[in-house]
Amino acid sequence: MLASIAHRTPPRSYGPWEQVASTIAEGLVARGHDVTLFATADSATSGRLHAEAPAGYEEDASVDAKVYEALHIAAVFERAREFDVISNQFDFLPLVFSRLTPTPVVTTIHGFSSDRILPVYRAYDDVVEYVAISEADRHPDLTYAATIHHGIDTASFHLGAGDGGYLLFLGRIHPDKGTAAAIDVARRAGMPLVIAGVVQDAEYHRREVEPHVDGTNVRFVGSVGPAERDRLLGGARALLHLIEFDEPFGLSVVEAMAAGTPVIAYPRGSMPEIVRHGVSGFLVPDVAGAVAAVAQLGTLERAVCRTDAVTRFSSERMVDDYERLFRRVVAEHRSASDRR
Amino acid sequence: MLASIAHRTPPRSYGPWEQVASTIAEGLVARGHDVTLFATADSATSGRLHAEAPAGYEEDASVDAKVYEALHIAAVFERAREFDVISNQFDFLPLVFSRLTPTPVVTTIHGFSSDRILPVYRAYDDVVEYVAISEADRHPDLTYAATIHHGIDTASFHLGAGDGGYLLFLGRIHPDKGTAAAIDVARRAGMPLVIAGVVQDAEYHRREVEPHVDGTNVRFVGSVGPAERDRLLGGARALLHLIEFDEPFGLSVVEAMAAGTPVIAYPRGSMPEIVRHGVSGFLVPDVAGAVAAVAQLGTLERAVCRTDAVTRFSSERMVDDYERLFRRVVAEHRSASDRR
Repeated sequence: MLASIAHRTPPRSYGPWEQVASTIAEGLVARGHDVTLFATADSATSGRLHAEAPAGYEEDASVDAKVYEALHIAAVFERAREFDVISNQFDFLPLVFSRLTPTPVVTTIHGFSSDRILPVYRAYDDVVEYVAISEADRHPDLTYAATIHHGIDTASFHLGAGDGGYLLFLGRIHPDKGTAAAIDVARRAGMPLVIAGVVQDAEYHRREVEPHVDGTNVRFVGSVGPAERDRLLGGARALLHLIEFDEPFGLSVVEAMAAGTPVIAYPRGSMPEIVRHGVSGFLVPDVAGAVAAVAQLGTLERAVCRTDAVTRFSSERMVDDYERLFRRVVAEHRSASDRR
Repeated sequence: MLASIAHRTPPRSYGPWEQVASTIAEGLVARGHDVTLFATADSATSGRLHAEAPAGYEEDASVDAKVYEALHIAAVFERAREFDVISNQFDFLPLVFSRLTPTPVVTTIHGFSSDRILPVYRAYDDVVEYVAISEADRHPDLTYAATIHHGIDTASFHLGAGDGGYLLFLGRIHPDKGTAAAIDVARRAGMPLVIAGVVQDAEYHRREVEPHVDGTNVRFVGSVGPAERDRLLGGARALLHLIEFDEPFGLSVVEAMAAGTPVIAYPRGSMPEIVRHGVSGFLVPDVAGAVAAVAQLGTLERAVCRTDAVTRFSSERMVDDYERLFRRVVAEHRSASDRR
């Protein structure tokens, strides 16, 4: 299991790629598989840990990203013959090692940062097994082995009463995530808004968010750990997820559902695959639609939201899917080797 | 031969790594070796060309450096079994592929951009053969197979009369290269200065160089191609190379000598290995020393400068050194394989 080394695995707060790598690794260990997690030295796993980088390059300025990415990825491929399959949760760089090893490489594509990285995915389409994290994120030029939605530890979220009297924004503070639109919707709907997340775009935060933060109508609580996240979600009337990009998946959306909190989202990217309109939230075309949806929240049942999350987005379901895929890839690979 | 893909190979103007890769490749082809040059698609070689990147990432904004570096380097290692030896002129990233191939990798270290990249060189010290480009640039933590000074095509430089009545600065406009010190020395010595080179640090250029450019006492001519370079060097009384860092090698210093032009340099980095004090130039401790050296230029013979460059820094000598090293590495590698 090759994790990203931007953060430790599992992440302390932000780090969706590291979170998914950890969830799959721990799930496979629990099922009796022998798993080696390649991650930062301060990572935690019930499997075996192999570390090259002392810490995440986003968390320790002395860690040079390019240097440690290279050492980290090479370490997996130098030991490749010890493994039945390599699960790559680390973007495109590991792909270019994949022709140099007999071990099959399954690469989860956590979204395309830009079209500029497509040439690498295209070049290794014939040798690497790709996993899409949503149907919406499948690129027409690539061949996929499977689409596997992310799953979360639903047991660490609890069905909340939604009685905090506020709407919630949970995610990076960045134009992509629509923080400003959430502020606008809350104001028009006449409800307080709580904003939680790391500031990724400081200029946007200063210009579009800070002027509205008054501690009452708009509260900014910054990055929150798992317990606080569960509590904040449980008290929220709804999550406002008014994204401005085709988000390949939304972990915070699934977390909200696991706390029984409906999601009001624009129908972009993976949102129509995650949010069931009229069941676990509303897909709305614009700010006015979002305001109208707030008035409709009473028609949704929080317990149904949670059940849907547990059924469709639990870590068990994700680990099932990956385990099945890994078994299939290993079997196909052995059979192809036998024919040679 | 794995060249850098910042620029095409050989470079149109700036590009010392690409220049050295080209010189070695062409020299080996001329001696009958079968050479495949891995470089940008617009590169030129009398050997075979393998290109992944359409153009240099410094020359074409549509070329993503990280994407094409990965594809470019992987291409060499995917074809490694076709080659007796891989000559890596491309910094540290190729090192991490070196344990995945039976073909020996000889890596020329063109200087350490920072101590942060040392962990990779240390990690592959046992498997990769390192070449230092000067004794001064050898790092105490690493094991080297050889030190090989760069060589240039001395035939493309001609013994000039040095009768242009000016001193010359030739190199990147950057604090490291001491452009400001050169202006100061020329002014104090009462001689005009010609400045040629690409502006690498625009703020430094604006602040320390431009205010002095008057077209007479200080002339700025920008980047110059080979013919203009030869002409400028041939007319110069001396090259001022008052560097502010431990330069691992100085191609422009050797080019000056090939045109018969003495070099006035600070004795940092590789300078004491290149410039023979009192023969092909002067090693001086400071600006005052440089001004005094200008007055002593009459004691040096331009023909001796050129002879020294032809003897010690010709491409023939460099290609001899690399050919000998490659033969030795291949022989040692075969013998080690036979023992296994």
